[in-house]
Amino acid sequence: MLNSKWFLEVSTPKEVNLHALEGVLYSSVSKYQKVEILKLASFGTALVLDGKIQSAEYDEFIYHEALIQPALITSTDPKKVLIAGGGEGASVRETLKHPSIQSVSMVDLDKEVVDICKKHLTSWHQGAFDDSKVDVYYEDARGFIKESTDTFDVIILDLPEPEETGPAVNLYTSDFYEEVFEKLGPDGIVVTQATSVAVNNIGTYTTIFNSLKSVFPLVRGYWVSVPSFYTPWGFVFASKGADPLLLDKNTIGKKIAALTKKLRFYDHETHNGIFSLPKYLREAIDKETRINTDASPISFY
Amino acid sequence: MLNSKWFLEVSTPKEVNLHALEGVLYSSVSKYQKVEILKLASFGTALVLDGKIQSAEYDEFIYHEALIQPALITSTDPKKVLIAGGGEGASVRETLKHPSIQSVSMVDLDKEVVDICKKHLTSWHQGAFDDSKVDVYYEDARGFIKESTDTFDVIILDLPEPEETGPAVNLYTSDFYEEVFEKLGPDGIVVTQATSVAVNNIGTYTTIFNSLKSVFPLVRGYWVSVPSFYTPWGFVFASKGADPLLLDKNTIGKKIAALTKKLRFYDHETHNGIFSLPKYLREAIDKETRINTDASPISFY
Amino acid sequence: MLNSKWFLEVSTPKEVNLHALEGVLYSSVSKYQKVEILKLASFGTALVLDGKIQSAEYDEFIYHEALIQPALITSTDPKKVLIAGGGEGASVRETLKHPSIQSVSMVDLDKEVVDICKKHLTSWHQGAFDDSKVDVYYEDARGFIKESTDTFDVIILDLPEPEETGPAVNLYTSDFYEEVFEKLGPDGIVVTQATSVAVNNIGTYTTIFNSLKSVFPLVRGYWVSVPSFYTPWGFVFASKGADPLLLDKNTIGKKIAALTKKLRFYDHETHNGIFSLPKYLREAIDKETRINTDASPISFY
Amino acid sequence: MLNSKWFLEVSTPKEVNLHALEGVLYSSVSKYQKVEILKLASFGTALVLDGKIQSAEYDEFIYHEALIQPALITSTDPKKVLIAGGGEGASVRETLKHPSIQSVSMVDLDKEVVDICKKHLTSWHQGAFDDSKVDVYYEDARGFIKESTDTFDVIILDLPEPEETGPAVNLYTSDFYEEVFEKLGPDGIVVTQATSVAVNNIGTYTTIFNSLKSVFPLVRGYWVSVPSFYTPWGFVFASKGADPLLLDKNTIGKKIAALTKKLRFYDHETHNGIFSLPKYLREAIDKETRINTDASPISFY
Repeated sequence: MLNSKWFLEVSTPKEVNLHALEGVLYSSVSKYQKVEILKLASFGTALVLDGKIQSAEYDEFIYHEALIQPALITSTDPKKVLIAGGGEGASVRETLKHPSIQSVSMVDLDKEVVDICKKHLTSWHQGAFDDSKVDVYYEDARGFIKESTDTFDVIILDLPEPEETGPAVNLYTSDFYEEVFEKLGPDGIVVTQATSVAVNNIGTYTTIFNSLKSVFPLVRGYWVSVPSFYTPWGFVFASKGADPLLLDKNTIGKKIAALTKKLRFYDHETHNGIFSLPKYLREAIDKETRINTDASPISFY
Repeated sequence: MLNSKWFLEVSTPKEVNLHALEGVLYSSVSKYQKVEILKLASFGTALVLDGKIQSAEYDEFIYHEALIQPALITSTDPKKVLIAGGGEGASVRETLKHPSIQSVSMVDLDKEVVDICKKHLTSWHQGAFDDSKVDVYYEDARGFIKESTDTFDVIILDLPEPEETGPAVNLYTSDFYEEVFEKLGPDGIVVTQATSVAVNNIGTYTTIFNSLKSVFPLVRGYWVSVPSFYTPWGFVFASKGADPLLLDKNTIGKKIAALTKKLRFYDHETHNGIFSLPKYLREAIDKETRINTDASPISFY
Repeated sequence: MLNSKWFLEVSTPKEVNLHALEGVLYSSVSKYQKVEILKLASFGTALVLDGKIQSAEYDEFIYHEALIQPALITSTDPKKVLIAGGGEGASVRETLKHPSIQSVSMVDLDKEVVDICKKHLTSWHQGAFDDSKVDVYYEDARGFIKESTDTFDVIILDLPEPEETGPAVNLYTSDFYEEVFEKLGPDGIVVTQATSVAVNNIGTYTTIFNSLKSVFPLVRGYWVSVPSFYTPWGFVFASKGADPLLLDKNTIGKKIAALTKKLRFYDHETHNGIFSLPKYLREAIDKETRINTDASPISFY
Repeated sequence: MLNSKWFLEVSTPKEVNLHALEGVLYSSVSKYQKVEILKLASFGTALVLDGKIQSAEYDEFIYHEALIQPALITSTDPKKVLIAGGGEGASVRETLKHPSIQSVSMVDLDKEVVDICKKHLTSWHQGAFDDSKVDVYYEDARGFIKESTDTFDVIILDLPEPEETGPAVNLYTSDFYEEVFEKLGPDGIVVTQATSVAVNNIGTYTTIFNSLKSVFPLVRGYWVSVPSFYTPWGFVFASKGADPLLLDKNTIGKKIAALTKKLRFYDHETHNGIFSLPKYLREAIDKETRINTDASPISFY
């Protein structure tokens, strides 16, 4: 007998996934989006925004370690970090593992989502929101960055996908990346989540990569497999010079040993794996010529 | 308006996927299984056996290069190759790219499937079945290997998953791997496809790994992301001593340059990526103690 | 944006329905079956057993009035009623509307289901279980009827479908109907729910009809449309002589006027409608020759 | 193992149905809509427009006899019939069974659909399009009726549902019904298909009923169950005086006996059944006060 209750996720108009649903922990509509906390048979508790899984209990550690650790391990001595998005609090959690951190600023548009995550996703944030080094701002990330008088060692872009009608469409343009560049310190690093790198759907990733490359002197792609996302997931690392490919086993090992809490996904071998892109992906990046700009936004879907 | 025609794939009792269906190229029931050739909006033409995608036009190159090339590149001078399963002919295609090859024996239970693939999946096999070096046998792979008087340089196990009621349940046991060991030459290598390595569903992979380790002196795990599989996919490489981790960039580059046809997925950087397992996967392999045997088969699902 | 949460109902292996799911009020597995109380967007609260809707808030009145009222209105002076199945309590509720009723015996296999219904389906039973005329027995209906020393004016069979592996398979045989016949008074009536009467799936209904006809002198078919069932639904009325087709408008009107509570579905015009079967259904009944017996049970699915 | 290929029908945003798909006979996009001819396991060949079943092989006889026969049997001597919509040709087929018919005018917007039906749905039209009494016009039905200089004995409205953005939204208004009234002869009858009469979704039907009642002196509702529609289906009959409720068994029997071809669904008992509405439906009709007009169209969904 097939399960009776399902969470239906319209991944694309051509791919629809049904996840067996064990319970509904929360469901409402915030000012910006539909917010659900669902208990899924395969992936545990999951945060679902506008019908799409943002992260899930069993594998969020893969996504969040991959989003945060390569940048913070590559950074020589990260003190000030800005996180755009990341309402679950897991990006803040990963950042706080680094003993050098002095302040984490998190900017998320939707206070309701953050409040719900604080309540329901305790295994994600693990109390990170209560740390005195952490300040949370509820506003548009682009405006916040533009008006900030601070500079940051690392900026993390943990944003919704660049859908034309979505709230994050102008957070993937070269114009925005220039504004990010200006607020980074001399050794500054930015990492953005960068959607799927599936071979049949690779153009969004390569355009984000290329748009960062039009602004930053050093850009590196990497990727992971987060099972609940159902598709290989890309990130782009960009910096004023710091290069994750120059890190050796020893350096990574020492830095990880100094962390205040353990990692489950990331270490030296993982680092080598995720920065070694398959041939077709490197070729697609090399061939990409599009740059996403405010004036000529690219329609990805 | 959502698409009207869908291919529904019950990946597990807890995960069901709908793929937009553009057309039905073939559909029937063979002596052993339901056989369909479907045209999917996201993945192109796909071979579907008993309701599960075996391989799809847009990404089969990832799966088949990953299955074949690490073993054949690692092998010093592969002349005789045995492929168990692999009805699409793409494993044979990849094998024939190596100029040293003198014979390829393919053993597949289901002649009907092979005949249908010959007709409908020309971009898979690319005429490989017509090569005079290739012999195809329609019988049970285990029996064939046991009774074979030949020895092989490389044996490829491209088999259905080890479901308890499926035809391949006894093709993942240490008893079978011992029979394989006996038919390998002194530098022999075996590679098996080894199901999902998703963090929430990792026990089948680690048991296959451990069962090979109980027989072979050298065992290495590697993995890829095949988008149409929806989950990261594992392979296990086992040998009498040959080690893919010892290959350097130069050696891999020279061997690839000597191939008679190009590769799209595999090269030195890809090789490094796929053999660099994430930390949680290495830990799961290390902790695994189960061995799958004929006498005490493990129930994976 | 399509709804995210769905109740998936496998109506047949060829028809699967997704109902938007607003909440999960109860979910567990009893000794006999999976029991769920779900809140459905289209039909309100619903009782779901083993993945199939039993009755739903918005239209259960159609099903239960149709199940109970034709028999009780046709019966001259019904005093003692037996209901087999009917855990929701709505069949008891409808029965108690008749002022002549002196006792209602309800026999349901699954005490857990009845307890859950008492708690969650108050708009169904409306306190009927508390009425002093009502006795509930938790046992197999066939055994209960066989061993009963009582006789009844009306017996209502509100049972699961006659699936081969289901608990009700032997509650649709002529042998059982003979046992029912023996426990009916001289003017006795039995009504059974009798599955779909859809033109493409009509054989179960006509066989149940014919099996009753092999035992009872008078048999009448009728049917209703219960939207949450997605298919026209059949009932069979059988008696030792009482005939619903002989009731005139006046008689029905007077009897309804005497009820202690109102009806929403059933009245004289409804009565005429539901007993007027479409031509193809009457022809299918006339052509049916099968009789379902304990010794030669008919495989309906 | 669940079927692999499915036709997914979004009946409403809250109800989605999956029908096992055996084959795709035709699929394209016409000037007006997506047109598919699908082979469904449960219902045989089906015409699907914009993702919704229009009629299906196994039960189209119910829908088309119900649409045509009550009007033509009630009409004293029908000679000239106009059918708006009805691209399958089955409405024409039913009309031509009446020996008194001298001309049938069919008006359908989409010539491509009619051409596809002519080719693929031969069991629907049974050659009706070739009858010399039949003329087919490819244009908007409302314009055709307004500009027609003819009068008709019976007008049949076999139209898409009155969705706000659909092509038929203004073919359910009282303004249109006035234009229809003017083109009917002194004993004229109009019948329209009138969407679902499910108790949880009854407002569209009652508004169509009431809109006709604002124009015609005599209006009668009736309904049938067409299994492939998954919901009870309503029709409204309106006339300048002719009344189907006054027909007796004898009259209906004689008229049916005179038809040139047999009926499977409709006869005297069926007639009584379909015109006997359940109590809640009559009450809903009585309570309805809305009238759908060109100036103030009612939003049904």
